[in-house]
Amino acid sequence: MKMRQALFLSAALLASAGAQAQFQKPDDAVKYRQSALFVMGQHFGRVGAMANGRVPFDAAVAQQNMEVVMAVARLPWAGFTPDTQNAEMKNRAKPNIWTEKAKFDEAGQNALKSLGELQAATKTGNLDAVKKAFADSAASCKACHDNFRN
Amino acid sequence: MKMRQALFLSAALLASAGAQAQFQKPDDAVKYRQSALFVMGQHFGRVGAMANGRVPFDAAVAQQNMEVVMAVARLPWAGFTPDTQNAEMKNRAKPNIWTEKAKFDEAGQNALKSLGELQAATKTGNLDAVKKAFADSAASCKACHDNFRN
Repeated sequence: MKMRQALFLSAALLASAGAQAQFQKPDDAVKYRQSALFVMGQHFGRVGAMANGRVPFDAAVAQQNMEVVMAVARLPWAGFTPDTQNAEMKNRAKPNIWTEKAKFDEAGQNALKSLGELQAATKTGNLDAVKKAFADSAASCKACHDNFRN
Repeated sequence: MKMRQALFLSAALLASAGAQAQFQKPDDAVKYRQSALFVMGQHFGRVGAMANGRVPFDAAVAQQNMEVVMAVARLPWAGFTPDTQNAEMKNRAKPNIWTEKAKFDEAGQNALKSLGELQAATKTGNLDAVKKAFADSAASCKACHDNFRN
């Protein structure tokens, strides 16, 4: 990953930390992060369907999907505000998100980094590169879910 | 609105029409469009808070929010697939979305156009321009909700 990209991702995560007062109530923050992650997951899944051979590989479509993924992937982090531990809305966030905040932020940063690498792979048009980068991204998502999601 | 922007918006709506087979089940399409509209609404609302004087106007923050709005605003339309009329997931879509499809598409296009004009207004840094464009955008959102949402 290029330094500029790394700085962008760090800035995105830092910016999210400053956004804590932006939600009118904890439920809004929960709904916001869940919404952003769902939209991202839909587009990520479409690239996955190509990587896993369920649909034919179309490099242009994969790129379009990764553009949406990258635009949306920087959003959900702002919704992990400490007050959402008391949200009424059902959610699967584990309390160690806030007791191990540095570890959570690092996991988020790793996910963004691997998604950036998947986007780069789609731009090469090389299916093998897309397969590898998709597997890495999926593992990076899973690592965060395993540690921080019930 | 510039011609290039108009073409982009038209292309976004057309692209959404071709995306009907992208959801595994109708509930996914409903959740997708609701998620995208919620994320968009959160960022649109932050610009609205400035336009309505509830928070101090910060042109840079308004621009950042409008960047997210514009990235996300082209997404929800793909989720209005005809099969979502039979979705199990609760939603407020009225059946005339599909019986008056051309009118619905036009309403969506008008909303995208007015949001583009609001984005342009935030770039001028002129609060009066932002206020006017926000009011126009909100009216454009409301017109679509009044006609097509229960």
